[in-house]
Amino acid sequence: MKKLINDPRAVVAESLEGFGMAHHDLVKVHADPAYVTRRDAPVSGKVSLVSGGGSGHEPLHSGYVGRGMLDAAVPGAVFTSPTPDQILPAITNTDSGAGVLLIVKNYTGDILNFETAAELAQAEGIDVKSVVVNDDVAVEDSLYTAGRRGVGGTVLVERIAGAAAERGDSLDAVTSLAERVNAGVRSMGVALSACTVPHAGEPSFDLAENEIELGVGIHGEPGRRRMPMAPADAITDQLLEPILSDLGAGSGERVLLFVNGMGGTPLSELYIVYRHAAKLLADRGLHVERSLVGNYITALEMQGASITVLKLDDEMIDLWDSPVHTAALRWGV
Amino acid sequence: MKKLINDPRAVVAESLEGFGMAHHDLVKVHADPAYVTRRDAPVSGKVSLVSGGGSGHEPLHSGYVGRGMLDAAVPGAVFTSPTPDQILPAITNTDSGAGVLLIVKNYTGDILNFETAAELAQAEGIDVKSVVVNDDVAVEDSLYTAGRRGVGGTVLVERIAGAAAERGDSLDAVTSLAERVNAGVRSMGVALSACTVPHAGEPSFDLAENEIELGVGIHGEPGRRRMPMAPADAITDQLLEPILSDLGAGSGERVLLFVNGMGGTPLSELYIVYRHAAKLLADRGLHVERSLVGNYITALEMQGASITVLKLDDEMIDLWDSPVHTAALRWGV
Repeated sequence: MKKLINDPRAVVAESLEGFGMAHHDLVKVHADPAYVTRRDAPVSGKVSLVSGGGSGHEPLHSGYVGRGMLDAAVPGAVFTSPTPDQILPAITNTDSGAGVLLIVKNYTGDILNFETAAELAQAEGIDVKSVVVNDDVAVEDSLYTAGRRGVGGTVLVERIAGAAAERGDSLDAVTSLAERVNAGVRSMGVALSACTVPHAGEPSFDLAENEIELGVGIHGEPGRRRMPMAPADAITDQLLEPILSDLGAGSGERVLLFVNGMGGTPLSELYIVYRHAAKLLADRGLHVERSLVGNYITALEMQGASITVLKLDDEMIDLWDSPVHTAALRWGV
Repeated sequence: MKKLINDPRAVVAESLEGFGMAHHDLVKVHADPAYVTRRDAPVSGKVSLVSGGGSGHEPLHSGYVGRGMLDAAVPGAVFTSPTPDQILPAITNTDSGAGVLLIVKNYTGDILNFETAAELAQAEGIDVKSVVVNDDVAVEDSLYTAGRRGVGGTVLVERIAGAAAERGDSLDAVTSLAERVNAGVRSMGVALSACTVPHAGEPSFDLAENEIELGVGIHGEPGRRRMPMAPADAITDQLLEPILSDLGAGSGERVLLFVNGMGGTPLSELYIVYRHAAKLLADRGLHVERSLVGNYITALEMQGASITVLKLDDEMIDLWDSPVHTAALRWGV
């Protein structure tokens, strides 16, 4: 496995440094401990949103730091939770006094370390709340998770809760909105190939020449089952069916359809998945009001995709459409 | 090679259909012959910009159709030039009477087919001009090219000329600006892996386990030479040196630095390349005024990257910053 890296142990630090150089108008990259904040943090009177997790899922989370989304992102080592000593300054240095909401993907290490940091920040008098994202319908428990994993829905929680914080909502209001988004979002993914953690140097799992992993996690952890390679439409059926039956969306409801690339899949293939998924949703009488197609939460260079469906209401649509200015998501500004 | 596709012969049509569904607010996708236009085309009084080429380089060109960039994109089969009967309606249906500029990457088939379409459109009384983009410093002639190939610089020509057309510049003015951008831009790429054309089913070339192709083309065609895998910084040196010596940019000049992924490379690795490239430019006394990092002109799922450097002046910076609203590039709106 060839990678455009120098020292495998320096991947996260060097990548963050480059990210900070390319987007110095937007973000400030802190080293030792590593975290990324909005250049203008703390924003007076605004609830701060802090997220983070293992690296290797870029643009998540650093790519979502900026107006209308996150105030800080905390990147761990590749596929490894960030530590409390990284998370704590991300909280304290973005809090304006209005409180901080932590957006945590449901992985055991993340839960533990964000919780520890939250307690330390609370001890300093900061009002901290948390929302745990657990949108992956593939498996109930997994290698790194008790309960469902947090995947693509995280991007949507960060955007919509981020928009609410930007318009001045209180910590309680932003938290309850984030929980509402999480309650109405479901995802499932598929891997066509494995991915290789730089310092490991070997693929994290093996797939045969004609095999795919249905319900794969964003670290390559096992999903529901392996199956022979199939046409894109058949795979899309198998991803969308569990999402819809779990979500329980009924005819006439409005949804956001998010087709996400795992990192190594061409955009053209994501649109082939989108095409069939949108048709299936229309067949069920659902209205696709908003959509997102691209590499937004990845697993290094894994080939594959995930589908995320979010039930929308008027408020969520307004917040989705409001201005956002981050490295990876931008409109209206 | 597993791909998220159905019928290999239907890849372009199905992908375009999905693209049109996801971005119906922005574009209109035409079938038989296939081309993509701005939803609001023709835009009264505005010079129309039309580009195109083989598919497989997404988001190029369809992802750049919209306000402040292209009026139409014409996708050929994968890695195959579009035909004159596709290009002609893209011209005639976007011309508002102000004339049409064709932005053509320098590949023999593209040149020929855009030229034929231009002559047919001129016979219908439409004012048509062309600019040929040839920014790749890697090789002088190549498998599909007499002279230098057109690569990453194409994105920058489309954006800056598109902004000039949007502000109401004449066909002559937009054409001369596009030529000025092309004259001041240079690129070079590297492949860490090959890519597989869907209907071919086999990789278009072979690279050994520890080998990379320096100066690779966006169809996987040969570059300058093969070399053993090296650290990202050393590869970046080898890409940037030929660009800078050919461009002849001197200390104090302002540039745009564009680090592009070939499709299968994680964003985190592109920022590692950006980091070193930006440092090298600073060492030469160049000012990186604007930057772009991501998958903007790809070669299917190829792993690799390209670097593009454009000399900037005040007018180009203003045009670059002006509002753009396409599927793949958006700001200010």
